Amino acid sequence: MLNTGTIIGFIAAFCTTASFLPQAIQTIRTKDTKGISLSMYSLFTFGTVLWLTFGIMSSNYPVAIANGITLLLALVILTYKIRYK
Amino acid sequence: MLNTGTIIGFIAAFCTTASFLPQAIQTIRTKDTKGISLSMYSLFTFGTVLWLTFGIMSSNYPVAIANGITLLLALVILTYKIRYK
Repeated sequence: MLNTGTIIGFIAAFCTTASFLPQAIQTIRTKDTKGISLSMYSLFTFGTVLWLTFGIMSSNYPVAIANGITLLLALVILTYKIRYK
Repeated sequence: MLNTGTIIGFIAAFCTTASFLPQAIQTIRTKDTKGISLSMYSLFTFGTVLWLTFGIMSSNYPVAIANGITLLLALVILTYKIRYK
């Protein structure tokens, strides 16, 4: 059963995951990564790997799927940051 | 009781929350926000407000606290992005 809290959680997960899409698109298009923090994306990418692990270990598939997608987007941004300093 | 999954979840939350600190510091210092996506920080900030709401509604205080901190950091970055386009 979906209560209000669960629905808010789903929308929250959608927003925080989807938010990395416009950043990835902008970074791919402009290759402007000067304002982006390497420390942020290194730590964030590592964190999403752990969230993905946590989601799989606890059979929490919404967490696993959301973080799997976020991980892919964060990896794109991190790769561009390293390549186009 | 803390099992391995819970510990991984805590470290994951710490990393993804803490990762926004170096970005906020870099943005405050350099005021260089050209490479940062306004759409990303708008959607991300909205998402963390929902995560905070979800954490409070479900009495999940680690989620509420982690997202409260992330929200503050994201708001700093968003404010700089809007002010120094």
